[in-house]
Amino acid sequence: MFNLNNKNATPLYQQLFLQIRDQIVSGELPAHFKLPSIRDMAMELAISRNTVEAAFQELFAEGYIYSKSRSGYFVSYIDQELASSSRTDHPQQDLHPKLVERYQYDFHPARLDPEVFPASLWRKCLIDSLRSSTGDFSQYSEPQGEWGLRCNLQFYLERSRGVHCSPTQILICSGLQHGLEIVAQLIKGRHESVAVENPGYHLPRDVFRNHGFDVIPVDVGAGGLNLKTLRSTSSTVAYITPSHQMPLGHVMPVANRLELISWSKTGNKLIIEDDYDSELRYIGRPISSLQGLYSEGNIIYQGTFSKVFSPALRLSYMVLPHALLNDYHRLFQNHFCQVPVIIQRAMINFMERGHWEQHIRRSRNFYKKKHEIMLQAIDEYFGRKANVIGLGAGLHIVLELTEGLSDELKFVERAKQKGVRLLPFSQFYISGAFENNKLLLGFGGMGINEIPKGIETLATLIH
Amino acid sequence: MFNLNNKNATPLYQQLFLQIRDQIVSGELPAHFKLPSIRDMAMELAISRNTVEAAFQELFAEGYIYSKSRSGYFVSYIDQELASSSRTDHPQQDLHPKLVERYQYDFHPARLDPEVFPASLWRKCLIDSLRSSTGDFSQYSEPQGEWGLRCNLQFYLERSRGVHCSPTQILICSGLQHGLEIVAQLIKGRHESVAVENPGYHLPRDVFRNHGFDVIPVDVGAGGLNLKTLRSTSSTVAYITPSHQMPLGHVMPVANRLELISWSKTGNKLIIEDDYDSELRYIGRPISSLQGLYSEGNIIYQGTFSKVFSPALRLSYMVLPHALLNDYHRLFQNHFCQVPVIIQRAMINFMERGHWEQHIRRSRNFYKKKHEIMLQAIDEYFGRKANVIGLGAGLHIVLELTEGLSDELKFVERAKQKGVRLLPFSQFYISGAFENNKLLLGFGGMGINEIPKGIETLATLIH
Repeated sequence: MFNLNNKNATPLYQQLFLQIRDQIVSGELPAHFKLPSIRDMAMELAISRNTVEAAFQELFAEGYIYSKSRSGYFVSYIDQELASSSRTDHPQQDLHPKLVERYQYDFHPARLDPEVFPASLWRKCLIDSLRSSTGDFSQYSEPQGEWGLRCNLQFYLERSRGVHCSPTQILICSGLQHGLEIVAQLIKGRHESVAVENPGYHLPRDVFRNHGFDVIPVDVGAGGLNLKTLRSTSSTVAYITPSHQMPLGHVMPVANRLELISWSKTGNKLIIEDDYDSELRYIGRPISSLQGLYSEGNIIYQGTFSKVFSPALRLSYMVLPHALLNDYHRLFQNHFCQVPVIIQRAMINFMERGHWEQHIRRSRNFYKKKHEIMLQAIDEYFGRKANVIGLGAGLHIVLELTEGLSDELKFVERAKQKGVRLLPFSQFYISGAFENNKLLLGFGGMGINEIPKGIETLATLIH
Repeated sequence: MFNLNNKNATPLYQQLFLQIRDQIVSGELPAHFKLPSIRDMAMELAISRNTVEAAFQELFAEGYIYSKSRSGYFVSYIDQELASSSRTDHPQQDLHPKLVERYQYDFHPARLDPEVFPASLWRKCLIDSLRSSTGDFSQYSEPQGEWGLRCNLQFYLERSRGVHCSPTQILICSGLQHGLEIVAQLIKGRHESVAVENPGYHLPRDVFRNHGFDVIPVDVGAGGLNLKTLRSTSSTVAYITPSHQMPLGHVMPVANRLELISWSKTGNKLIIEDDYDSELRYIGRPISSLQGLYSEGNIIYQGTFSKVFSPALRLSYMVLPHALLNDYHRLFQNHFCQVPVIIQRAMINFMERGHWEQHIRRSRNFYKKKHEIMLQAIDEYFGRKANVIGLGAGLHIVLELTEGLSDELKFVERAKQKGVRLLPFSQFYISGAFENNKLLLGFGGMGINEIPKGIETLATLIH
């Protein structure tokens, strides 16, 4: 039976979830066993139906139970031997990677607010796309992605980001990673190393390393990538986030952009511009893209629906320079587009009906408020003990502490004990270098009321 | 205005489609111009509404026009300059790859029948997945794919294909190509060349070549891959389709499978088993997978939803051997799953509600009938002039002509003139070698009434 405790810090539904889960993993509840109804269980345990339902939904979402319409929930089949062995060998993670703790204050930067997701509009667009695509389920689709989506993107990118291209240069991808995989294959043989921002996003480093490239760190200053350092390296490719440097948040000024472009003009150079969240700018006007400054040049432009719309959708795009199109066609002519047609068509509907621009405006206002609350809370609880860098855009800021931490990882662990999730800043460094005075604080997924409390908790931990 | 001719071989709707398209591309119909209503246009041109609607749907599907609910169709924005310049440089194809001819008899093997697609069940599952996943649109999902989908696949593969694995070994991918990209990165450095069936599927060759592997052709006999040839090569990796050799259709007998497994046991060998359409077997019992014969060995098992369900969904899976799991986690730990969560959840619903098994049974019966009609038609129109090889399974057969063609490509071109689409068999050969007596005939997407007529047309062309 279950042992639920109202006074426990863990919410009731989670206690119930954990206990049922353990019984499933241990085999106490066998595969295909029918769980009691929500109503019966609520009565028996003298808790609310909502609590039971929340636990069941969690079990369902994580695959421990499955549902049959009109007959309730059943225990999923789970390999007991493996489940128990992997528990001892690699506790939890190996069996089921989603079994991570829930945090009270989650400052992870890759989270959006479910409230801002336009669920009903999107559902409508998807259902319409399903209705109009039935015949298309039986065949492969266009390798570069749906023409209609590329036309819409071309139009959008031109107006909002100053990107100048034709739909024939656009590739629909399933995320930055997928786009970079294609780039890596395209440029292999002609380039040997890729310069990346340090600190910077880990994913491009991983992808290029996996493809055998040398990854060369270049330091970042207030003007973005340090161009002097870049020139001193032998690298002929630069991967950058000029509109909102990840993670420091700097915007590369136009002068530097022009200098970077002039670098790219000597020799066989290539710039990969990752414009991942430029839609979210709260202060000042957005700077147009690098690509737009020199659209005839060797610049690959990457954009995504993950940051401002949904990371679960796996939808992104890439604009290839004309110079790479022939190679792209040669290497990938027989490949298929990796994004489901119905998702692409749903996005065409979404954009053509004007929902996309509306969603961006709405998201910008929504996250702008969180951003303000974040800055206020930091001012209140940290005062002079910290500066904020990289503010004014995106879904995270960086807190620079005037007094350093003695051990970053220990601090992250201590924060965890208090229900605060932090991504260690040192993970952004190519060497994993120890960083003792910076905290990356994502606010996208935090509730408006959670932000001040989270910052307060953090401040208490530091002082 | 439009110039439609009833006596023209091109259907009326297509004439209308082409003429409107040209006016859009030339700019004669400007962006955001409202098209007349279907009713008005039908009256004006004295044709049926269905014809106008078909033309509009085609224009819509290809992105030339967009719709606003309750106000009709409008011309999409298209870059005129580019549209016209690319027209002269690379006629059609470069502007919009989908502008390919429609064939009366399309024997391309990668086509399914829209009729067998369970549109309403799938829509229901997808809508339910949307409803239950709203909160999950705001975060990234499990890198290996949804746990629930992996559990369902594990269960299904065990029962239907004898694959023995745990859900922790399963990766959800967006098609064979994506799965092979991961494999290529996993085995890079430890393997230098990959042996492939010749004739065989082009995609694995492309992927491994793009990743810098040598691709070594191995001939194929009635027992599948020639194991003697394989042993004579230096290759340590073999990519094979043992349950239904692509394209010849041979099934590798168990004795050969065991011999292949024994090959894999010496040295650091790896087998990649592509089990792409084993669900569709019409004669005899399916042979269980290679993986199931030696599940503790170095066998990567690849399966897909593209052949028996929908190629437009971009959903496939791969079972990694235990020996590769650590490397997989090391290389891809920070990567994201490329398949949208809602698609995965919809498939969980579809499988858990029993629709998947039902769909397989239905598809098998459905295509079995087409397969029979195909064989009858060949018997009737070719008689002794051709043998069928690789029959009894899948969505295509191979016709072996007793008297060879003088020029395959010219014949394919002649067939095209008669409205018959053929994929040149020589494309399956690694060298593109000329093949003069084999025709690959896909029947998945052909209507039951079209098959005999298509075969008759083909027979007329040959004799």
